[in-house]
Amino acid sequence: MPLLGRLRGRLEAERPFAGRTIGICLHIEPKTAVMCGVLRAGGAEVVLTGSPGTTQDDVVVALRESGMTVYGRRADGAQEHAANIRGVLSHQPDVLLDNGASLVEALLEGSGVSRVLGGTEETTTGANLLREKMCGRIPFPIIVINDSPLKLIMENEHGVGPTVVSAFQNVTNLQVPAKRFAVLGFGSVGRGIARCLKAQHGRVAVVEPDPIRALEAVLDGFAVVGLERALRENEVLITATGRANAIGAEHLGMLQDGAILVNTGHYSWEIDLQTLRASARSVEALSDAVEAFTMADGRVVYLLTRGEMLNLAGGGGNPVETMDLGLALQVLSLRLIALRTPGLEPGPQPVPAEINREVAREMVDVLSRS
Amino acid sequence: MPLLGRLRGRLEAERPFAGRTIGICLHIEPKTAVMCGVLRAGGAEVVLTGSPGTTQDDVVVALRESGMTVYGRRADGAQEHAANIRGVLSHQPDVLLDNGASLVEALLEGSGVSRVLGGTEETTTGANLLREKMCGRIPFPIIVINDSPLKLIMENEHGVGPTVVSAFQNVTNLQVPAKRFAVLGFGSVGRGIARCLKAQHGRVAVVEPDPIRALEAVLDGFAVVGLERALRENEVLITATGRANAIGAEHLGMLQDGAILVNTGHYSWEIDLQTLRASARSVEALSDAVEAFTMADGRVVYLLTRGEMLNLAGGGGNPVETMDLGLALQVLSLRLIALRTPGLEPGPQPVPAEINREVAREMVDVLSRS
Amino acid sequence: MPLLGRLRGRLEAERPFAGRTIGICLHIEPKTAVMCGVLRAGGAEVVLTGSPGTTQDDVVVALRESGMTVYGRRADGAQEHAANIRGVLSHQPDVLLDNGASLVEALLEGSGVSRVLGGTEETTTGANLLREKMCGRIPFPIIVINDSPLKLIMENEHGVGPTVVSAFQNVTNLQVPAKRFAVLGFGSVGRGIARCLKAQHGRVAVVEPDPIRALEAVLDGFAVVGLERALRENEVLITATGRANAIGAEHLGMLQDGAILVNTGHYSWEIDLQTLRASARSVEALSDAVEAFTMADGRVVYLLTRGEMLNLAGGGGNPVETMDLGLALQVLSLRLIALRTPGLEPGPQPVPAEINREVAREMVDVLSRS
Amino acid sequence: MPLLGRLRGRLEAERPFAGRTIGICLHIEPKTAVMCGVLRAGGAEVVLTGSPGTTQDDVVVALRESGMTVYGRRADGAQEHAANIRGVLSHQPDVLLDNGASLVEALLEGSGVSRVLGGTEETTTGANLLREKMCGRIPFPIIVINDSPLKLIMENEHGVGPTVVSAFQNVTNLQVPAKRFAVLGFGSVGRGIARCLKAQHGRVAVVEPDPIRALEAVLDGFAVVGLERALRENEVLITATGRANAIGAEHLGMLQDGAILVNTGHYSWEIDLQTLRASARSVEALSDAVEAFTMADGRVVYLLTRGEMLNLAGGGGNPVETMDLGLALQVLSLRLIALRTPGLEPGPQPVPAEINREVAREMVDVLSRS
Repeated sequence: MPLLGRLRGRLEAERPFAGRTIGICLHIEPKTAVMCGVLRAGGAEVVLTGSPGTTQDDVVVALRESGMTVYGRRADGAQEHAANIRGVLSHQPDVLLDNGASLVEALLEGSGVSRVLGGTEETTTGANLLREKMCGRIPFPIIVINDSPLKLIMENEHGVGPTVVSAFQNVTNLQVPAKRFAVLGFGSVGRGIARCLKAQHGRVAVVEPDPIRALEAVLDGFAVVGLERALRENEVLITATGRANAIGAEHLGMLQDGAILVNTGHYSWEIDLQTLRASARSVEALSDAVEAFTMADGRVVYLLTRGEMLNLAGGGGNPVETMDLGLALQVLSLRLIALRTPGLEPGPQPVPAEINREVAREMVDVLSRS
Repeated sequence: MPLLGRLRGRLEAERPFAGRTIGICLHIEPKTAVMCGVLRAGGAEVVLTGSPGTTQDDVVVALRESGMTVYGRRADGAQEHAANIRGVLSHQPDVLLDNGASLVEALLEGSGVSRVLGGTEETTTGANLLREKMCGRIPFPIIVINDSPLKLIMENEHGVGPTVVSAFQNVTNLQVPAKRFAVLGFGSVGRGIARCLKAQHGRVAVVEPDPIRALEAVLDGFAVVGLERALRENEVLITATGRANAIGAEHLGMLQDGAILVNTGHYSWEIDLQTLRASARSVEALSDAVEAFTMADGRVVYLLTRGEMLNLAGGGGNPVETMDLGLALQVLSLRLIALRTPGLEPGPQPVPAEINREVAREMVDVLSRS
Repeated sequence: MPLLGRLRGRLEAERPFAGRTIGICLHIEPKTAVMCGVLRAGGAEVVLTGSPGTTQDDVVVALRESGMTVYGRRADGAQEHAANIRGVLSHQPDVLLDNGASLVEALLEGSGVSRVLGGTEETTTGANLLREKMCGRIPFPIIVINDSPLKLIMENEHGVGPTVVSAFQNVTNLQVPAKRFAVLGFGSVGRGIARCLKAQHGRVAVVEPDPIRALEAVLDGFAVVGLERALRENEVLITATGRANAIGAEHLGMLQDGAILVNTGHYSWEIDLQTLRASARSVEALSDAVEAFTMADGRVVYLLTRGEMLNLAGGGGNPVETMDLGLALQVLSLRLIALRTPGLEPGPQPVPAEINREVAREMVDVLSRS
Repeated sequence: MPLLGRLRGRLEAERPFAGRTIGICLHIEPKTAVMCGVLRAGGAEVVLTGSPGTTQDDVVVALRESGMTVYGRRADGAQEHAANIRGVLSHQPDVLLDNGASLVEALLEGSGVSRVLGGTEETTTGANLLREKMCGRIPFPIIVINDSPLKLIMENEHGVGPTVVSAFQNVTNLQVPAKRFAVLGFGSVGRGIARCLKAQHGRVAVVEPDPIRALEAVLDGFAVVGLERALRENEVLITATGRANAIGAEHLGMLQDGAILVNTGHYSWEIDLQTLRASARSVEALSDAVEAFTMADGRVVYLLTRGEMLNLAGGGGNPVETMDLGLALQVLSLRLIALRTPGLEPGPQPVPAEINREVAREMVDVLSRS
């Protein structure tokens, strides 16, 4: 993670977090641990907790040994998580790094809001909560990391696309060349997947209701078709729509015998799994990642990784370089908050342009080097 | 031009221009003539003039025979053009289709502004004039066609890119595979060119000062390098920057012996041609489209199509399908003006979203058919 | 495996193996088991053994239950394997399906050669043994499956290439876009890998001493460079040469700090692993598939999957479709042998053209369907 | 033409043609003139004639001024050409560079065969004549240039493909993205065209009766379809089959209204033009390169460049680099002949492997440089 490496050197000299406590809620694993080390090198007191079910206990041990305060462990449930959040807030952090608005939500319920200089929010889901549920109630700036155009470019198009395709190959042992895929949704994720499949000689149809995106798809050489035709004519159906029931109960009867269902959206709701499970005559797990559903009419339909994001559930998820970019955006945004930079409004807001430009410049430099 | 064909049928039934006079300033050639016919089919009285030097006289004859009033001919100079513009305005048009703000500028100098319902402007250059020089003085809406996202997608990326590459091959008879190209500028035009060259096995370096565009280029697999290195290491230098002197006097000494200079931007100023011509020991025209400059130090540098846009000056320009899209945007925008659609503000403004969506939808349909 | 499925129906009707015993030595896993079932459906008595270390014991049970005779189990060593081979031959097979010439070698040492009608050999290694060590001593035809042009096209170029790239992503969690790869060897495997990396926006240099292959590489848009430059300038080094010590002891000092070593050739000898291990100051296993070697001068070099074929050792190996093709070639070749087809010479020989054409036709049909 | 440039230096030093007369029949244009200069620099007396209709008279003047003997001019017909051939032979050449076996055929009819050391033949057509009509009657070696694998790689796949696509764009002003093409024939020419169209976002179907080539096409991601379906479903039909009437009389009724017919094979017979012309209700020339045929049922079918090779008749033909390669093969082959190199058999034969390797090596070097 060369971006974090460079930042560490710079922050050690500058110490923008000296005298500040940063309260963190984030998945605890080796890559986020590196970022915590960078914040600490910048002078911060670091107090953190993970998310239920993803905390890596050995990383917790290492973080504690390096002098940080960590709440929680992998085995924690919802109740323990709430207690961990309260634990972090009990240190009266000046700056927050939040994930799903957990810290902010708890903070608003309690006291101590006035002490906080501001923070960051990792996810779009959290940003939506801030904008809708907590709208107008947040007196400090929160920079939303996930909306940065850099993440769109590097993670969605160049990170998710290829890792979905490689996870497909690993999980199914099927070839891409000559196979017929339908990609539902031609946003940056869908476009990345469709282009990667085509580059590997797959035959790709695209379903996209938005006419401008559909024009982009058709000019890219994809067959743009209606949903029903896509379901009937293709072997692999990939959802990247961001919507529930993109493949709904009424569509299950249109699938080919042998069709393979894949979801790449954040939630597993893009395929109506409940109806799929309910209407199957039998279900067989062929492997950890492949289930075969025999339907009432005898057709067999395959579901990969239980409908969860294929590249995460069936592979290593986003590449390291993408994580490096996202965490560098975090560190520089937290620095801006800690320095009480003028011009930041209260409430959720995008990553400032100068940070995007700086991180992009550094990443271009790193990728052009070697 | 299937989009115009479909529009004709629809406007014949609707006749949104009945009783209206449309005053037009636009290049007069067969494709724009088709559009004039569509406007007339929609009930319009059509009065038009061309631009100096591009008017096709046989098309003028045909337009007149079909009952339109046409001012001007190919041989006209600046003075005659001004008279032609006045001629068009003398018909007291209700709606204007303008090119470079010629009609609007003349209108503001005279009287009759109050009669006009509104109009369209084809070019970005014209839009800039409207926004800067005539700002606040235009009491009616002007829809700027060239800023439509559809034109960006279809014309810049998928139209200009491939036609620049094919014109390069036709003009030079050189192969693209294994050749080293530097593309200066990674906007939609530069990106389209760079991708097309790479798809044909060229080796492509990109020069782009904006870090976010540079990140896109590097993640697309291009070498992102500084200008000086690009000039020293590549055989073909292609400007797509929109800026003057992207290759300036100080850069001419860095070019390889045998380097080929190509401009694809709207103005020929992206290469400092004046210095190039002044500093060459001799110049030889190898063909209509290729000049060889022998420099003082003996190096030979080639310039294609006198530094004018390669795909226009060395080929057929934008594909027919792209013209069809642009003219359909024109017709539907003029229709909105003629119908005094509520919600249009005075002054220059983008193509309304519903028109973009409709034209995109029709184009997807046309391109998916056959 | 649709090709095997179609063959089953046809052989059930024709029963070309009626009254014949087929002796088989092949990896015993689900896909080869399907082929055994097809042979049995064609009338054959099937007797088989696996290779040491790869036999799947549950598949053995299933094969026995379906009425075949199987020798061996996963735990077997070299001695047991020799006994298993003798066990198969004790059934006096009429037709042989061999792997690495194990059955033929044992047969030549004993008696019973005269009874055999002929057979097939799966591997190039086995074919080399037949041509060199047993040359002139084999009185019956042996069809060598692996030399079929179909395998070259489907397995080497379209099977190995993409699975190497997907295994790289899975094993390292690194991105391909913008990364610098050197591919050593531009045969069908190397070409498949290089093209797949480039299609995913990697930056790829090729090292290839043969000038005609090098011309193909350079016209494909790759940088063709010398070995030393390739080693010094790239982050990931991939061997696909078929030669020992393609990266030898003298090259280890040229590797970048952080270089990643990958082998995709059949033997792990393409990288001089012995010297690598001997000269490293320390070795750390970062995961099952990644080892980090700290060299005497402090550089760190990473080795994937202990230098074994990356797509096999770090992924699922060749796609199912490729296996289907290879096993269909097996079945049709064995059929030709069993029918004593005129025109087959004694000794090793390529798959007859009509079989290649038939299997290609069927595969095109299968892949065009759905 | 850097390869010829390098050869000139080498031959000036070596003078392998000293005391020899080389009799040449070849298209006389600037590029072949450069080669004649190289032969002369190598010590040869050069006597040449062109082919009827292609001789460039200004090049003839220049060649004569440099001291060569040239027969013929552009206006010559068949009779004058025969006289020119006799003129060349009257100089009693030691070595022949032939085109279509014109010199050899005339030589066999007269006397003087015994004097000739050998020669080269540029075309496959000439090679076929030598092998069939003159089989066994040629007492000296003739090296056939066009069969070199280098020409297949560089000219057919990387030269013809891209120039066909760029000529299509120039001649029609249509876009490639989203357009439906059928390519008839997936040899090296057809493959080059199909890949280039796909790389530019065209949608491409392939018709190929040979199952192994069809498998290559389908694994490359193309739709492999039958001829009738290809004709009915696509907008642009491109022949690259090498066979007469690939689109025959019986197929004309299957074409879409608006279909565009393109030939890229050496002879214009791949489309049944006679029937097309005979059965059209009317024919209109839209430009030099586009004819519109209105069929009896009202459909309009377009024919590009009168059915002649699109990249030659509608563009500049093969790239300069390809010519450089072919002419370097010529010079080195003539050198081998002139030096009476042992090992050359009488009659037509392929370019020796060492020449292919040397030219490939030089070309890789040239293309990797700059």
